[in-house]
Amino acid sequence: MVGMSANGSTGDAAPSSLRLIKGHGTRNDFLLVPAVDASSAPPEISAELVAALCHRRAGMGADGLIRVVPPGVEGNGKFWFMDHRNADGSLAQMCGNGARVFVRYLVTSGRVVADPDGRLRIATRAGENEAQVHADGTITISMGAPSFPAVRAVPVVSVVSAVSDQGSSSWPATGVLMPNPHAVVFVDDLDDAGPLLDAPDVAPGSVFPDGVNVEFVVLEGPGRLSMRVHERGSGETQSCGTGACAAAVAARRRLGEGAPAAWLVTVPGGRLTVTESADGIDLRGPAVLVGEVVINDLSALLG
Amino acid sequence: MVGMSANGSTGDAAPSSLRLIKGHGTRNDFLLVPAVDASSAPPEISAELVAALCHRRAGMGADGLIRVVPPGVEGNGKFWFMDHRNADGSLAQMCGNGARVFVRYLVTSGRVVADPDGRLRIATRAGENEAQVHADGTITISMGAPSFPAVRAVPVVSVVSAVSDQGSSSWPATGVLMPNPHAVVFVDDLDDAGPLLDAPDVAPGSVFPDGVNVEFVVLEGPGRLSMRVHERGSGETQSCGTGACAAAVAARRRLGEGAPAAWLVTVPGGRLTVTESADGIDLRGPAVLVGEVVINDLSALLG
Repeated sequence: MVGMSANGSTGDAAPSSLRLIKGHGTRNDFLLVPAVDASSAPPEISAELVAALCHRRAGMGADGLIRVVPPGVEGNGKFWFMDHRNADGSLAQMCGNGARVFVRYLVTSGRVVADPDGRLRIATRAGENEAQVHADGTITISMGAPSFPAVRAVPVVSVVSAVSDQGSSSWPATGVLMPNPHAVVFVDDLDDAGPLLDAPDVAPGSVFPDGVNVEFVVLEGPGRLSMRVHERGSGETQSCGTGACAAAVAARRRLGEGAPAAWLVTVPGGRLTVTESADGIDLRGPAVLVGEVVINDLSALLG
Repeated sequence: MVGMSANGSTGDAAPSSLRLIKGHGTRNDFLLVPAVDASSAPPEISAELVAALCHRRAGMGADGLIRVVPPGVEGNGKFWFMDHRNADGSLAQMCGNGARVFVRYLVTSGRVVADPDGRLRIATRAGENEAQVHADGTITISMGAPSFPAVRAVPVVSVVSAVSDQGSSSWPATGVLMPNPHAVVFVDDLDDAGPLLDAPDVAPGSVFPDGVNVEFVVLEGPGRLSMRVHERGSGETQSCGTGACAAAVAARRRLGEGAPAAWLVTVPGGRLTVTESADGIDLRGPAVLVGEVVINDLSALLG
């Protein structure tokens, strides 16, 4: 039935069949769309097809999809471009977990040869990002510098979350832009946030007109925190790379002078390391390629 | 990285790489494990590997896995055997949605040629089942006759489910064995069941010592019902084939003499048709093969 044909050599024409790679970083999972050869454009994927492919039961299932765009193609510059879409087909901004999976694929497939220190650069919608592949199975991605909405103060916003059978609770929050928006709440216990079935209510809404990701953070010790995250549009997830960065940034500022610049961040899907320096934030964590997917009859998927 | 090697020719030895087919019936999804050639045993899949493959984010994701076992192999008789495992790796009994996907693969891959009416037989843990492939994209599977726990009476059990912010509600239920256990509740509105985050509490527990699937059913009209289902061990799902059968059986008995024998059942993942006759229950619905999956480094998946 399903044969072994790969992505068409017609460049960016809409495909009739598709070859994908599935991978994840701390259980934030992605479908990569490479071209059949390393210098061609990968096939165009309509928003409808992205949503069908990412559907967890009727498709292959993923949190997002990443087209693997070579240098010099589609207006791209000299680095490989991570063309990242959300599971609903909308365009996504920078995603630290997805970027590690993207880098893992570039290196493992031979598309990019890292320098002797394992370093390479990629292009994302946030600009150019540095990456470093480590021998321990982790990859570091430069995430840029954090900024802060409205006023750089704690608290700038408040978060209200429904807590089952006990009504709701509210907390002050720290707003952090990575550059996507985050509201970081410090709690004594991760269960304090309740089941997180609905998006927490963040006020004033004018601070985050496009919605906001909310992190609930427990400070475990010097340079160690654990967190849960509710992502706008996705609900609670296993991991959020920019959320881990935002949590570490907020934790460092909460502790004040002398607070560690490097944080080990435990998310439900695994562990990440966030390091802040004058150059910005570095995010380090695992990136695993799970397998290859071939879909020969895209019409069945869309039907 | 991920190459195109298929399942080893070593018969039932534990594989180092794996070729899978993903499919779904009314959004109840499965990974099929065929052998590389049609007369060999498919590779053995440990419970740990089943769970890793079926994990929605760290694996490929599915509600279950089905080894495609040829006739005369592994003690199998003259029909292809559906060796079905739950997502946690435990052995599964008959599954109507999975059986349709299994039949779709047998026919589409050329492993079985149906008779001129589209009929063929398969082997499952419930015995031998008849199947019929229809021109409209649906497949019918014979599901055996229903039976009833303890006494054949309505109600035999009661179901209590948590309804958010309003405490809980309770209903009388009809017990049906297909042969897996079901408790069918009739409600005015599918929302009456609440969020179904936890397994409904079914009393007396002695009626279903191994747990029970719970269906919440709205009678939409003569021969039409809609339902939600909470599956033991899985939570609320998009579809449950035996649950659709149990709901139709309970609905027919609730309406009494003259009630239709054929029911169109709307589940969250699509539509099924359940027909009861002296020969037992027939379940008809769609079965879609989504794509092919190749996993070359199983150690990464288990690591």
